[in-house]
Amino acid sequence: MKIISGGVTAPKGFKAAGVSCGIKKDNKKDLAIICSDDIAIAAGVFTKNVVKGHSLQLTMEYIKKGCAKAVVINSGNANACVGEAGFKNAKEIAEVTGNLLGCDPENILVGSTGVIGVPLDMPKILNGVKETALKLSPEGSNDAVEAIMTTDLVKKEMAVEIDIQGKKARIGAIAKGSGMIHPDMATMISVITTDVNISKELLDKALKEAVAHTFNRVSVDGDTSVCDMVVILANGKAENPGILNEGTEYDTFKSALEFVCEHLSRSIAKDGEGATKLIEVVVEGAASSDDAYKMVSSIAKSPLVKTAIFGEDANWGRIITAAGYSGAEFDPNLIDISIGSLLVCKNGTALDFDEGEAKKILEKDEVQIKVNLKKGTFKDRIWTCDFSYDYVKINGSYRT
Amino acid sequence: MKIISGGVTAPKGFKAAGVSCGIKKDNKKDLAIICSDDIAIAAGVFTKNVVKGHSLQLTMEYIKKGCAKAVVINSGNANACVGEAGFKNAKEIAEVTGNLLGCDPENILVGSTGVIGVPLDMPKILNGVKETALKLSPEGSNDAVEAIMTTDLVKKEMAVEIDIQGKKARIGAIAKGSGMIHPDMATMISVITTDVNISKELLDKALKEAVAHTFNRVSVDGDTSVCDMVVILANGKAENPGILNEGTEYDTFKSALEFVCEHLSRSIAKDGEGATKLIEVVVEGAASSDDAYKMVSSIAKSPLVKTAIFGEDANWGRIITAAGYSGAEFDPNLIDISIGSLLVCKNGTALDFDEGEAKKILEKDEVQIKVNLKKGTFKDRIWTCDFSYDYVKINGSYRT
Repeated sequence: MKIISGGVTAPKGFKAAGVSCGIKKDNKKDLAIICSDDIAIAAGVFTKNVVKGHSLQLTMEYIKKGCAKAVVINSGNANACVGEAGFKNAKEIAEVTGNLLGCDPENILVGSTGVIGVPLDMPKILNGVKETALKLSPEGSNDAVEAIMTTDLVKKEMAVEIDIQGKKARIGAIAKGSGMIHPDMATMISVITTDVNISKELLDKALKEAVAHTFNRVSVDGDTSVCDMVVILANGKAENPGILNEGTEYDTFKSALEFVCEHLSRSIAKDGEGATKLIEVVVEGAASSDDAYKMVSSIAKSPLVKTAIFGEDANWGRIITAAGYSGAEFDPNLIDISIGSLLVCKNGTALDFDEGEAKKILEKDEVQIKVNLKKGTFKDRIWTCDFSYDYVKINGSYRT
Repeated sequence: MKIISGGVTAPKGFKAAGVSCGIKKDNKKDLAIICSDDIAIAAGVFTKNVVKGHSLQLTMEYIKKGCAKAVVINSGNANACVGEAGFKNAKEIAEVTGNLLGCDPENILVGSTGVIGVPLDMPKILNGVKETALKLSPEGSNDAVEAIMTTDLVKKEMAVEIDIQGKKARIGAIAKGSGMIHPDMATMISVITTDVNISKELLDKALKEAVAHTFNRVSVDGDTSVCDMVVILANGKAENPGILNEGTEYDTFKSALEFVCEHLSRSIAKDGEGATKLIEVVVEGAASSDDAYKMVSSIAKSPLVKTAIFGEDANWGRIITAAGYSGAEFDPNLIDISIGSLLVCKNGTALDFDEGEAKKILEKDEVQIKVNLKKGTFKDRIWTCDFSYDYVKINGSYRT
């Protein structure tokens, strides 16, 4: 596997574009299309929030048949909680896009991200769709990723090339964060493309497995959004005979897909609203996978842990506290806690560690917190970020 | 019922004092004793965190027999996660205090609040205990409450007088917040005293019921501390014949107790770390009490809701989002959301509300968020506060 350039248009037979249609201020790009030359097989993973955006609801319906040609996404407006017009508008976007791209509207997946409760400005959106459709290009990934950003500061793109069944195949992806992010899933928007030839069933399985360990292990603020999704389109243009069974070829594909998803997930955490540091929380030695997940999630959500890391303060008392209320079963007299390579708590008891060394570890822009429960063999890890003044600033005045 | 002055020493036969023993910086008071002239019956509610501070563990053991004479509390150090010395030290504090007050050490309840993982400086603490015991006075509530504060900005005291069985009886209390606060319980430290004559069973029942609706409905940051407790001592000095059965007299006492606890709970939320506003979250029309609790808790914990309120932004999309991932069952097409008296979302759909009116509501220092699910008859409410720059500032550098 090697990393290549080109993002979501790196795989053969994909084009993309992004334009400014006037939803976001300051002429920022806010409408993207990612399109396969031919109908591709498609799979998706969607938010588990009970409240779901109207565009998301349409996409969940359309993707059921297992194929799609394009994904159209607007940023700046979530198209959520606006009543009947919301679903109707999402449908119209699919219709207009389908007409322009020469396919059935049901082959168009629609995504919207941004403010909740404001009706879409449809004339702007539809003009934007037309303009974007004209600009579709095999070099369009960069514009598309820019057009799906909300409070993101960094563009999130990745592409890799792998050898599958004697052919070169590619996986490309774009993603956006960066607030209202927590499992379960999908905690943001990501569009993944691949030219590999793979069965619908295995594409679905590979996506679900990859997402479980990557996008579903990112928490910025503990808030699971109503609009978020990961979709993948596979158009078979790599001309490999076809991955039809599990085995080596499937594993190669899945591991490359997971690599791409992991890169984007870490980027989302690192670019979390106001973040100055990426935090990786690892729990080992749990009695069950459920316990391991509860504990990484609890530590990653704790505002006290996150502000301590922002302040570069090795306040592990907050880590053991979050572990203690996580709902996971463990013996407080067995727990070990490390910050980076520094063991700060052994068997539930404070160690007299070197504060200078702790400071050096915490000054870095990536910090690992590791907890060992010594109860069993299960483990989990989650990526999050610190809580800074800027998080408050960004979110105190997002809408107005 | 009338509100009276005197705090925790307002009831007959109680004394208190608070001194600086040198744990906290700048000569701030950090050691308090609250003492009944005679042995009182006692009840307590304690944190559900799996990790428990050593002083708390001792108190949980001693209170089992149902009586106590005094509570001794230090602030600045949680006496938690320091190994075997922690429990031994808590025991020694009880012993020395018991000797000074002329009672069995097992009649002394011990509380510690502050930094986790640092051994207690016992010479300082024991000197402080001696000094405090000498200063005990019926006017000592104010010094005691000062000595249990950590990051609190406001002293939290309340006392009331009620008529019970032809006698005047009093309930007094002090409490401290103000970070690492979330159900379940107890989310802070509070000492309540009363001179009412009541059976141990009914004291226990009244405390548990009052706490469930008050102290267990406060969330500052979603972090349930390892050290927290509410204890009540009842010494019978009011000389009422005795509340031995449920009925009018019990109800009078319980409702006064709940009034005291509610006042302190609201004070804790309002004085939450960095808080500029008290937020009351109310959920009505839930299908079960569990659903109602899940939803108030989810909304009150959401950093996005809390930063929006800080920014005085009527961003109800974040409220419906937090409702949606709360785990409560509801129909997104039925939900109504109000901010203060202003309905902003009806049947899951945005209303075109007056932003100027919203701003006026949000400018106040108390804001109510109300959600109606129209599914059933259950309701709940929780108090929290907004998330400000100061929360980050306070918690980025708490320990060092």
